[in-house]
Amino acid sequence: MALIVQKYGGTSVGNTDRIKNVAARVAKYHAQGDQIVVVVSAMSGVTDGLIKLAKDIALLPSEREMDMLLATGEQQTIALTAIALHALKIPAVSLTGAQAGIVTDSVHTKAKIHNITPRQVHEQLDSGHVVIVAGFQGETAQGQITTLGRGGSDLTAIALAAALKADLCQIYTDVDGVYTADPRLVPTATKLSEISYDEMLELASLGAKVMQSRSVEFAKKFGVVFEVRSSLNDNPGTLVKEETKSMEGVVVRGVALDKNQAKITLVGVPDKPGMAARVFKALGDATVNVDMIVQNISHGGGAAATDLSFTTDKPDLLKAQKVIDGLKPEIGFREVLTDEKIGKLSIVGVGMKSHTGVAGKMFDVLAREGVNIGMISTSEIKISVTIDLALGEAATRAVHAAFIG
Amino acid sequence: MALIVQKYGGTSVGNTDRIKNVAARVAKYHAQGDQIVVVVSAMSGVTDGLIKLAKDIALLPSEREMDMLLATGEQQTIALTAIALHALKIPAVSLTGAQAGIVTDSVHTKAKIHNITPRQVHEQLDSGHVVIVAGFQGETAQGQITTLGRGGSDLTAIALAAALKADLCQIYTDVDGVYTADPRLVPTATKLSEISYDEMLELASLGAKVMQSRSVEFAKKFGVVFEVRSSLNDNPGTLVKEETKSMEGVVVRGVALDKNQAKITLVGVPDKPGMAARVFKALGDATVNVDMIVQNISHGGGAAATDLSFTTDKPDLLKAQKVIDGLKPEIGFREVLTDEKIGKLSIVGVGMKSHTGVAGKMFDVLAREGVNIGMISTSEIKISVTIDLALGEAATRAVHAAFIG
Repeated sequence: MALIVQKYGGTSVGNTDRIKNVAARVAKYHAQGDQIVVVVSAMSGVTDGLIKLAKDIALLPSEREMDMLLATGEQQTIALTAIALHALKIPAVSLTGAQAGIVTDSVHTKAKIHNITPRQVHEQLDSGHVVIVAGFQGETAQGQITTLGRGGSDLTAIALAAALKADLCQIYTDVDGVYTADPRLVPTATKLSEISYDEMLELASLGAKVMQSRSVEFAKKFGVVFEVRSSLNDNPGTLVKEETKSMEGVVVRGVALDKNQAKITLVGVPDKPGMAARVFKALGDATVNVDMIVQNISHGGGAAATDLSFTTDKPDLLKAQKVIDGLKPEIGFREVLTDEKIGKLSIVGVGMKSHTGVAGKMFDVLAREGVNIGMISTSEIKISVTIDLALGEAATRAVHAAFIG
Repeated sequence: MALIVQKYGGTSVGNTDRIKNVAARVAKYHAQGDQIVVVVSAMSGVTDGLIKLAKDIALLPSEREMDMLLATGEQQTIALTAIALHALKIPAVSLTGAQAGIVTDSVHTKAKIHNITPRQVHEQLDSGHVVIVAGFQGETAQGQITTLGRGGSDLTAIALAAALKADLCQIYTDVDGVYTADPRLVPTATKLSEISYDEMLELASLGAKVMQSRSVEFAKKFGVVFEVRSSLNDNPGTLVKEETKSMEGVVVRGVALDKNQAKITLVGVPDKPGMAARVFKALGDATVNVDMIVQNISHGGGAAATDLSFTTDKPDLLKAQKVIDGLKPEIGFREVLTDEKIGKLSIVGVGMKSHTGVAGKMFDVLAREGVNIGMISTSEIKISVTIDLALGEAATRAVHAAFIG
């Protein structure tokens, strides 16, 4: 008998028929004698509908009240899921985040989980119930309802799996698992049977939008093994877990292309201490998310100067440009260049730690494809380059073919 | 500075514009320096929509899960109402039933309020907030979410008013108050400025559908003075309170016609002890709601026998008939007659206690109108008769004209 935490997202519980499908899947595990905790999101569309109501009333609704409002979405799903399980004669009981003992800090709309005291979850499991927990929500130690922000339901599932010492945590979504590349882009991409936390983190931050980084980080911190799999079929998914020795045999686990980046270059920044700090402090204050940063000696004017480039998400470009323009009098760079027509191509794999020549091989593949490399950024297990957006997809296929097949 | 509890029903908060109207009204009281607790229902249509979802999944959903599901309706309204007050620069905070300290028994879908420990309500009022509480819901001592059944939001308001020792409790609805009769039926009907709990109770049970009896009973028990008034205008409403000496000067406070009753007569019931008990025990077991009961000597067959008549709500008629048919072998009455074409006409007034001849006058008025009286039932402050449904409205106008004007 295993204890399994299963998480179903908004699409998987998007209408009453889908909720019945979820119940049927839970019933199969229940019939095997497993203990099951089900974490569900709000039915797709419900949260957006509630946000629209609030925005009809005020442009900037209070975050505490938004939590009060949005927490109802998941609460509805847990009740309906319990009802669907009862219809299959499965004993089941629903619990809100608060009832499941999920205690958070008091940062409304993006609360962090402080601790979990799942007394009621244990009691209900012990008495033979499937326990259905509302994802995305918790309460403060003072009893205020909070929500966990984007990807919050994944986080609920993984945190509960940690607190309950579950044997397995399954994240059900609308894809079969984690692939070596986006199959729509690379027809030869294959599903990975396993991947390490660090690789998954790099892929999450590289635009492979299976899960939010914070959930993976949480899983890594508490050693929660989880499986990403589809709620539409019975195919095995991808296990995400601590790096094993055998994983290092694979040099490149995955290839990702991020088309959503834009590049900003400050040309001719005076070459003296504190310049970069001022730039990125100002961008941070304006909540502009900066990804790659590269600095090089400028070949322009007379005095010692550097060119400073960084990338940001395309929607943040205008905001970033405003911040940079505001710094011009203070810093005195020569000009600002922006480029929205870039793609960021990355390869990820823990095997890179023990293999040499990976970067050289990647650059060689790109050169043979006639792809010019802009910025380069590397970590222990990742190499990212910016390239011409128009060549992005062909370059992704070439790199995938060279490293993976 | 007064402490006022205001309750707004589903129609009053039926969309975001109406919620803004509620906020504007609350703001006016707030500007006068009053402390305000607002109790709201679910937006009209929301509860029915949730019930439909549940019934799509199972015909008889679990009552615990229905409470989990339906409690979200009011939770959405409190958040939106708080947001609307913030938009008017009024400090406001929403509380679920549980957060407001409303503790109930564990009879899901029709829980009774056990006690209220409104610690958070006091704290928020003391710090200058308007406090918005979800009506219709509470939680058990074990932390399970419950709902209070029909009219539950009125009950929340009155119970909170009692617990907070509020100066006034206002029940906002879509009528101006309590009238001497239904104005659509009796054009000369006038709004009452005050009415006693007992009169209100009789009127509530007589089909004047302003409020559920249980809320009035609760108010009477704890001496909560409340005002029924309209959320659509600023007209003063009707104060419901303990009977005063001056109230007795008015013999008849109101006239009500209930068109929703049906009559069942058991003809020739053997005249021996225990017959009536068996009949009404069986009806009670089948949850048939019985209103008037009349028994008389039967003029039919040879042996000593009686005719036993009672009324019930029309929708219960078939169920009642089945119960009675099932009793025939055991009791051995001669036949069953049913009549759906009856109306129940009632007059109510605490003044009846000290005035004689009221019944005689009523019967005289009806006789002059050519209206035949069927069953008669009286209490200290009420006289009800059944009459031909077709003559019901004319009879109501005649009785109103004779007693009230």
